[in-house]
Amino acid sequence: MSADGPSDSSAFSARRARLRGRLQEKRLPFLVVSNPVSIFYLTGFRGSAGVAILGGRGEELLWVDPRYTLQARKEAIGLKVVEVRQGLLKAAGAWLEKKRAVRAGCEESHLTWAALKGLRSACQKVSFKPCARLIEELRSVKDAGEVELIRRAAKITSAALADVRPLVRPGTREMDLAAEIEYCMRRRGAEGAAFETIVASGARSAWAHARPTSNLLKKRDLVILDLGAILRGYAADMTRTLYLGRPSPHLRRLYSAVKDAQAQAIGALRAGVLAGEIDQTARRVLNRYGVGKYFTHSTGHGVGLETHERPRLGRGERQQLEAGCVVTVEPGVYVQRLGGIRIEDTVLVAPDGPEMLTESPKDDWIVP
Amino acid sequence: MSADGPSDSSAFSARRARLRGRLQEKRLPFLVVSNPVSIFYLTGFRGSAGVAILGGRGEELLWVDPRYTLQARKEAIGLKVVEVRQGLLKAAGAWLEKKRAVRAGCEESHLTWAALKGLRSACQKVSFKPCARLIEELRSVKDAGEVELIRRAAKITSAALADVRPLVRPGTREMDLAAEIEYCMRRRGAEGAAFETIVASGARSAWAHARPTSNLLKKRDLVILDLGAILRGYAADMTRTLYLGRPSPHLRRLYSAVKDAQAQAIGALRAGVLAGEIDQTARRVLNRYGVGKYFTHSTGHGVGLETHERPRLGRGERQQLEAGCVVTVEPGVYVQRLGGIRIEDTVLVAPDGPEMLTESPKDDWIVP
Repeated sequence: MSADGPSDSSAFSARRARLRGRLQEKRLPFLVVSNPVSIFYLTGFRGSAGVAILGGRGEELLWVDPRYTLQARKEAIGLKVVEVRQGLLKAAGAWLEKKRAVRAGCEESHLTWAALKGLRSACQKVSFKPCARLIEELRSVKDAGEVELIRRAAKITSAALADVRPLVRPGTREMDLAAEIEYCMRRRGAEGAAFETIVASGARSAWAHARPTSNLLKKRDLVILDLGAILRGYAADMTRTLYLGRPSPHLRRLYSAVKDAQAQAIGALRAGVLAGEIDQTARRVLNRYGVGKYFTHSTGHGVGLETHERPRLGRGERQQLEAGCVVTVEPGVYVQRLGGIRIEDTVLVAPDGPEMLTESPKDDWIVP
Repeated sequence: MSADGPSDSSAFSARRARLRGRLQEKRLPFLVVSNPVSIFYLTGFRGSAGVAILGGRGEELLWVDPRYTLQARKEAIGLKVVEVRQGLLKAAGAWLEKKRAVRAGCEESHLTWAALKGLRSACQKVSFKPCARLIEELRSVKDAGEVELIRRAAKITSAALADVRPLVRPGTREMDLAAEIEYCMRRRGAEGAAFETIVASGARSAWAHARPTSNLLKKRDLVILDLGAILRGYAADMTRTLYLGRPSPHLRRLYSAVKDAQAQAIGALRAGVLAGEIDQTARRVLNRYGVGKYFTHSTGHGVGLETHERPRLGRGERQQLEAGCVVTVEPGVYVQRLGGIRIEDTVLVAPDGPEMLTESPKDDWIVP
């Protein structure tokens, strides 16, 4: 697979074929796709704006503005590319009207109220059905090409963490550490960071999503590093927590609790298990250590074209994991004033159980 | 102003006071704010998720999930922070119901159809009015603190371009150049890149929004560099085009056309002018050179908390520019096979005319 250039178009047409099957089950002749991530997934076009109509009648179109015409013609193999200066959704709506459509699906979790009003005004006889989940469910099970890209993104992420590990010491500025992480990922072939790299030290490590500041790392700081490379659209996501100094027994116990919770939750990952059971496993371990109350988020989430996607490994989630799901497992504890500890890996649900995609030691978390 | 840490909370409360004035004009007692950018603008809270209710009765609330409770209490001065595990919008809706609200504004260009349905289900007696534009209009005129941050982001951007200029030569990989640009911005104090850095060479420079590839720059390539730093949430945006070799008379003429169009459009920037007139100015110059047909986008856009925001400098736009608007001016020509040329700067509409925020030479575009 080349680092860039057009992908194999058969993967995209296979996804559209699967989508058509789902649409037929729902008796929906058309699906209006407006989320750029969905458009990339289903067509190969990777612009920031576009509207596609996909569906059961074989005629598939992609509307783009003039910035993207050349790119769309090259990337979206098998679709008719239509250039319009403005109002992509209106143009798609007008096409539906011309086709005398009466029902069409749309992505209700992406389409804004304003956009929906624009779309409806262009095709008043069409009744729209929420169908975002249909695409999200397709995306939650990765094909071989997708797994390969996430695997590569994960390797880059792990390598970048190893690159910067010597900089995690008193005197390093949080922002500089984040800069080095992103630079290392880039130099190793990533398109960039999949999300804003988190470097949070001291009490701010208890903010689960803190931005790096100009604070210097210092003795007796917990330091959370949360990073992920993106490669041809696919993300990885990993977190490690280090301690600068000699941790107290209390801190050691917190760290062990999180590490143990993560290990057991990863161990439970297999096809057929409910997403909520993985969350339950992590929570049970933390409770056994008596620190469950410090765990303020869910245990993990799918990773792919978005850093956060289905399945959600949260309380009571009923989605069944399948071979090909790629998820994070990331229990954490956050104690006001003391700081936070989170350990996160990206893991593939392989046919025979979990397969680690990110890798970095968890035992040498102490920087003496 | 410190590089991070809490900002002066009076700027945020001043913005909320202005917002309350606008809401009173519209007789709206409440505004449900769900776009994280708007929430940051109006409250100082810079998390990735939250819902605020702002309005005329003085009681202002911010709902966040447990990941953000500590951060929100520190950043959103003057608001009551409410922690809920899930369903921020539902919690806000339930509060409106309890207050017996019958009308409330919302951000229709951010709120998805799915979110709107969730919100409505929690407060069925409330009628929602589209109000996104109200916040966007406030944001389109920057206060002194905002201008200062954009000015600093612009300086970092300009400096990063100067840093990497020697690398723009045959043999450099597009992706490596992008990596260096982002690293230089970070090292100079940026939080990161405001958008995916564009490095597009050769025929791909005709793709107005091409991603960097593993292609090497080579002799006789046009190279478009489009970059912008982000600093405490505020973006800058600039583009330069270089040519590796001895340009043909045709290419020189294209370059002159774009440079001239940009200069005249910038010259026309002043308070009171309609946004569409700036676009018209650029277009007129390009037409005079006979290359207007290659200009496939609008002349510019506002820059601030988002890289693309109001005002839009596009055909027929009726918004009047005001002192404090910060916009890009970026005419370009894109010729299939030959490549593209775009020149872009971020410019402040100052009380006495345009003030350049990004700066980099435009005359030494030839790398012999």
